Amino acid sequence: MSRTPGFSFSELARDGHARTGVLSTPHGDVLTPTFMPVGTQGSVKTLTPAEVAATGARIVLGNTYHLWLRPGPELVAQLGGLHAFTRWPHAMLTDSGGFQAFSLAERRTLVEDGFVFRSHLDGARKALTPEVAMEVQGLLGADIAMQLDVCPPGGAPRPEVEEACRLTTRWGKRCLAAKRPSQALFGIVQGGTSVALRMAHADELGALPFDGLALGGFSVGEPIAMMHEVVAQIGPHLDPTRPRYLMGVGTPIDLVHAIGAGVDMFDCVLPTRNARNGQALTQHGKIVIKQARYKEDRSPLDPTCACPTCTGGYSRAYLRHLYMAGEILVLRLLTEHNLHLYGRLMREARAAIAEGRYAAFARAWLGASDAGNA
Amino acid sequence: MSRTPGFSFSELARDGHARTGVLSTPHGDVLTPTFMPVGTQGSVKTLTPAEVAATGARIVLGNTYHLWLRPGPELVAQLGGLHAFTRWPHAMLTDSGGFQAFSLAERRTLVEDGFVFRSHLDGARKALTPEVAMEVQGLLGADIAMQLDVCPPGGAPRPEVEEACRLTTRWGKRCLAAKRPSQALFGIVQGGTSVALRMAHADELGALPFDGLALGGFSVGEPIAMMHEVVAQIGPHLDPTRPRYLMGVGTPIDLVHAIGAGVDMFDCVLPTRNARNGQALTQHGKIVIKQARYKEDRSPLDPTCACPTCTGGYSRAYLRHLYMAGEILVLRLLTEHNLHLYGRLMREARAAIAEGRYAAFARAWLGASDAGNA
Ligand SMILES: [Zn+2]
Ligand SMILES: [Zn+2]
Repeated sequence: MSRTPGFSFSELARDGHARTGVLSTPHGDVLTPTFMPVGTQGSVKTLTPAEVAATGARIVLGNTYHLWLRPGPELVAQLGGLHAFTRWPHAMLTDSGGFQAFSLAERRTLVEDGFVFRSHLDGARKALTPEVAMEVQGLLGADIAMQLDVCPPGGAPRPEVEEACRLTTRWGKRCLAAKRPSQALFGIVQGGTSVALRMAHADELGALPFDGLALGGFSVGEPIAMMHEVVAQIGPHLDPTRPRYLMGVGTPIDLVHAIGAGVDMFDCVLPTRNARNGQALTQHGKIVIKQARYKEDRSPLDPTCACPTCTGGYSRAYLRHLYMAGEILVLRLLTEHNLHLYGRLMREARAAIAEGRYAAFARAWLGASDAGNA
Repeated sequence: MSRTPGFSFSELARDGHARTGVLSTPHGDVLTPTFMPVGTQGSVKTLTPAEVAATGARIVLGNTYHLWLRPGPELVAQLGGLHAFTRWPHAMLTDSGGFQAFSLAERRTLVEDGFVFRSHLDGARKALTPEVAMEVQGLLGADIAMQLDVCPPGGAPRPEVEEACRLTTRWGKRCLAAKRPSQALFGIVQGGTSVALRMAHADELGALPFDGLALGGFSVGEPIAMMHEVVAQIGPHLDPTRPRYLMGVGTPIDLVHAIGAGVDMFDCVLPTRNARNGQALTQHGKIVIKQARYKEDRSPLDPTCACPTCTGGYSRAYLRHLYMAGEILVLRLLTEHNLHLYGRLMREARAAIAEGRYAAFARAWLGASDAGNA
């Protein structure tokens, strides 16, 4: 089903609830499941677009809140849109800005019409309504825009979660009315950790002509096992003709679980942020590179990894030295490694689904992760 | 003339005092004139070895003082030496550590035997003698080591400069006696801005079996025109059978002058440090990328530059945005651009010398630079 010209989704194979497919966009096809590296301010931190693409990524996420405040959507549009501005040639999605406006901005208030807040950069007063969210995302010009939604904190009382769903639906309709015809738009299912609320909201949004459906409001403080359980139930319930996107999640383990529930798309700052904090992720756990145990360690981060860092001959000892000395190079090398791990996980998951062996693949990944630190 | 096995220098062509040649080392040949990017702590800041080599550099400089304190020369040696540790496959030179011990360390004192100082990292008491300088550089394992020398500040009284020359000679002899047979060693000519002192010291060191002769103690506060004038006189006076290295200098303009005086080798933090301060260098002057004038500027840093930044489609407007947003990517992109400029200057200077048109080439470069900011 194609609601927006140039945008479509086709399921290629299914294995249990897990599925592999292809998302077609004006900037190329994206095989799913797919992980979107986060380019908050118009750059996937430390890397060039070519290095990001080399990890297997064919879609990245830009943060509307940050780009709205700096350099401003009018400037980005004037310079040809976010693709041309940042030199990313593949697909791109922008969030609505609501989550960051709520979590980063000062003195923000929520009213029927949207958010009012003050910029964390200069204190300027800003209003983020559904129409503004569509206007700003339209100027940025990503292939996929996200509706403005209300994301209650983990553990919010049920009436607050119910009201968040209702307001999110009203805002979703306003976004659909305001969106650019050429830009795909995803709705965002809320409902906290209540499967019943989630299902009702998914049905409500599913009746609207969104190009895809996202799960928002996860990884906001609820227990991880509870998130896995709720996603396991709500994932398969989302309209299978449209791409399903689990927002802001998560660890490789989280992704293995969610793919098993039929989720197609992910984004998370974890691989890039952890890299900048000196953590390399592997299938067998984390390497905290500053630890003294790596001081004389000649081995690569992960001998099974095909990334430029692991195949380039950089020893853990050298990476540790660079980290202790505050050298920027190590932030790049760890970021590349971590994003390659996510790219590999997606690639291997797609192959496992296509070959009908996803359950075994998931068990192997989760079992290896249980083995503890590398 | 080859004093150290595996190391030699041959002049290929001369044009006035300017000359082009080839420095042969155990890690490959280096065409001269050559610029050595500075890898202070085992990394040319922000770049991979492949990116450094792509600028045309075939020799880099490592700072003994920093590597001595962290991670320590024993560890570097245990991990195969600085080449293997840092993955730099081409030639490498280390300084003696004396300059940094004098400028960075706390409570340093100078005695006949060497320097005594406290580490700027942890306050540990260290003694840097000629023998220690050779021991540490031997463990690091660069192709070329530098003698320990005394570098008086700009404007030092003549008796202090004279004593610095005498002590540098005595230390040079001790370094020659202590050096590893497989590692080339350069002597360092001092003498401040006195051409007579410089010539006398050059003759004194030239009589010793150093593999090359360096000019130290420039760019320490003296007027730039005075440096150009003194280098113009002392450069051609240095033994032509050995490579000549002007330490810690400088701008492209300084290099054009010094090449004209027969200098073969340079190092300077300017292109890498300026990049991290948001300055792109061009033949026509500096671009201070944070300036508002670049806010909507679609052009590359330098349309005549073949570096990945300028040919990659990155606009000045995007680079400015990244810099204002504190994104690491811009530090890489500016560093690559600046080092490519130095690489191009060396390449074009070599060609001009080989073709007997260096004077015209130098005039064109200096004239373009006079044209002011880009
Ligand atoms: Zn790797
Ligand atoms: Zn350039």
